[in-house]
Amino acid sequence: MSLGSPHPHPAGAHLRPPLGMALGVVAGSGRPGPSRIAAPVGDAVLDIASLAVAENGPHAALLHRPNLDGLLAAGRPAWREVFGWLAEQLADPDRLSGHLLPATGVVPVLPFTVADYVDFFACEQHAVNVGRIYRPHAEPLTPNWKHLPLGYHGRAGTVVVSGTPVVRPVGQRGPGDAGPTGALDVEAEIGYVLGGSGGVPGEPVELAHALDHIFGVVLLNDWSARDIQAWESRPLGPLLGKSFATSISAWITPLDELAAAWIDPPPRDPQPLPYLLGPTDRGLDLTLEIWLNGELVSSPPAADLYWTPAQLIAHLTSNGASLRGGDLLGSGTVSGARREQRGCFLELSRNGAEPVSLADGSSRAYLCDGDEVVITATGPAVGGGRLSLGEVRGTILPTTSRI
Amino acid sequence: MSLGSPHPHPAGAHLRPPLGMALGVVAGSGRPGPSRIAAPVGDAVLDIASLAVAENGPHAALLHRPNLDGLLAAGRPAWREVFGWLAEQLADPDRLSGHLLPATGVVPVLPFTVADYVDFFACEQHAVNVGRIYRPHAEPLTPNWKHLPLGYHGRAGTVVVSGTPVVRPVGQRGPGDAGPTGALDVEAEIGYVLGGSGGVPGEPVELAHALDHIFGVVLLNDWSARDIQAWESRPLGPLLGKSFATSISAWITPLDELAAAWIDPPPRDPQPLPYLLGPTDRGLDLTLEIWLNGELVSSPPAADLYWTPAQLIAHLTSNGASLRGGDLLGSGTVSGARREQRGCFLELSRNGAEPVSLADGSSRAYLCDGDEVVITATGPAVGGGRLSLGEVRGTILPTTSRI
Repeated sequence: MSLGSPHPHPAGAHLRPPLGMALGVVAGSGRPGPSRIAAPVGDAVLDIASLAVAENGPHAALLHRPNLDGLLAAGRPAWREVFGWLAEQLADPDRLSGHLLPATGVVPVLPFTVADYVDFFACEQHAVNVGRIYRPHAEPLTPNWKHLPLGYHGRAGTVVVSGTPVVRPVGQRGPGDAGPTGALDVEAEIGYVLGGSGGVPGEPVELAHALDHIFGVVLLNDWSARDIQAWESRPLGPLLGKSFATSISAWITPLDELAAAWIDPPPRDPQPLPYLLGPTDRGLDLTLEIWLNGELVSSPPAADLYWTPAQLIAHLTSNGASLRGGDLLGSGTVSGARREQRGCFLELSRNGAEPVSLADGSSRAYLCDGDEVVITATGPAVGGGRLSLGEVRGTILPTTSRI
Repeated sequence: MSLGSPHPHPAGAHLRPPLGMALGVVAGSGRPGPSRIAAPVGDAVLDIASLAVAENGPHAALLHRPNLDGLLAAGRPAWREVFGWLAEQLADPDRLSGHLLPATGVVPVLPFTVADYVDFFACEQHAVNVGRIYRPHAEPLTPNWKHLPLGYHGRAGTVVVSGTPVVRPVGQRGPGDAGPTGALDVEAEIGYVLGGSGGVPGEPVELAHALDHIFGVVLLNDWSARDIQAWESRPLGPLLGKSFATSISAWITPLDELAAAWIDPPPRDPQPLPYLLGPTDRGLDLTLEIWLNGELVSSPPAADLYWTPAQLIAHLTSNGASLRGGDLLGSGTVSGARREQRGCFLELSRNGAEPVSLADGSSRAYLCDGDEVVITATGPAVGGGRLSLGEVRGTILPTTSRI
């Protein structure tokens, strides 16, 4: 299989801007403080903290921080004021002069403190493909799959920003067998960044109010070591096969910016319980792309996700668990029905049985040292046309340790 | 079965002190700040921040904080200085006057910000019992169990301090079936509180150095809703069956305080890989007790844990995952070979088949609303005699919501 194409995402361009409003945090700006809240503007980066002070922006104290934690905690009314004000500013380039930094002079940093990270398994096609590979003699979906959005907590402390290299992990691959993973994979996902009040502990967040808790959306690469994961996962699920690194895009696209991307979810059979149904049960029509060393290898469609963001939040809090600003929810791997829409190499290569052929004549069952993976996404923009989300990028470094 | 005994843990005494040095954080002291670092001294609470300033203690700036986060980050050399100084102070009651608060006047708060919470499954007897209940026609242990310490990430944001009531969670219990859990359980565990440098990302923490990362030990109750857990757990492990609440003791016992409690681990067959073996591979000889409404129902022996704290840390970082100050590792349920040593009601009642008889004539398959559970522990003290750890206590409140 070859899905080659010219490379629109050159190496090193970690701050390639999204089209549309987005927020992030940059360091190395030469301005006061360890890092600053910023927004991409063309090939430059807007110093939002500086602009907010100069232009008397709303919630300037929350914008003059080294990360987005304060703004995330402030909740949707504050977010709307900030986004509305920022949209006005962006529409008037004259106001921005003096607050723009050259993108080449700054580096992105993790834009918020990740509180709890929960990774879901919301894509039916992915779950079916994985079930067929790992449990070939059983039903591909477990009996619970269509009744609730399955998920697990991941490691919040190893979530890293786009551009951070990923060291090939070592680990146990079977009885008495340890060494570098031979099955290092990507998982192309949507990440939902939560904020605002966590609600009343013990009280579920109703589906009708669930979207009020989403600050914005990132692209997420849930790096996975399939051999480590397969050996460790029964009965408690994945741990070390995932916990070495999870990458998110440097830029967070506000949920309001995606207002034109809402789409009806796929038909469900059986119908989920009432707490998972309602008008906010809608998906996001985003098309992801996975680029390996500059070559397009897959275009997973997020519109196909079986479980929608409002359902993930309603379910996650259905037992009374509270949310916190900085909670990060991953959709799980996005995969479409066609081969060129699969969101990980486990599916693309059928666990190595059908390696992916690349334009340079090489092939991949899984990632090699030195490989660079970039995940991008586009969707319908408010007012027409398409917007792009901030990319998530990472390069594989060779193992440096042994166990 | 009845294991009745007089009740040494009266309701409401959330600050019942451990015997031996311990640190925690209290609010409502009437002194400046939202909360203060403190230590139990008899029936009183020592204001460590105040004492450190008055007596020119080491690292006073880290002790004059609203929680232990700063001290946890400082690492073992700083901890040793603080513990050594505090031991001197505690040996001279005259110095403490003016810094003691009546325990009845303060309330404990969560003593540190939980970074990542990983709950292990380190007890063979528990794993065998649970395997027999959930998979009666299969081998009770999965093939990986004796090769690596299995575990999963839990929800850090719902870890609560001893004394916090727990609302009976609602959730899905089967296809189309939702409601309050009918199988609310405890899990009696040891919790290891980590701090110091997280090591070099990408570099495992060697077993020989693993214990340097442990600040101290808490008792932990991993509340579990067995019906929710059973329905959701395949293939990704537990999520909502656990995420509503995890309670830890208000007081953290420094690891150095437990120097007399180290014990050789149980024999292993097969031998684990070399990264899991070495002189620090030792367990803690602590005897837990589970008290239900004042009646002793079980005495789980932590000495029986198959996987030791150094192994948990060496394994968790074997893939290069970094640690953070505030990481919390649970041992998993502690259960001994005898019935009266089982660490949860799933095992004590064999999932309801053999309810536990209580002294008041009632019986329990699982917890009822209004039930109060206290978990305590004792172990050998340095210099002879026994020390006790701070208790972890919680009362079940009725469900207040529905889904």
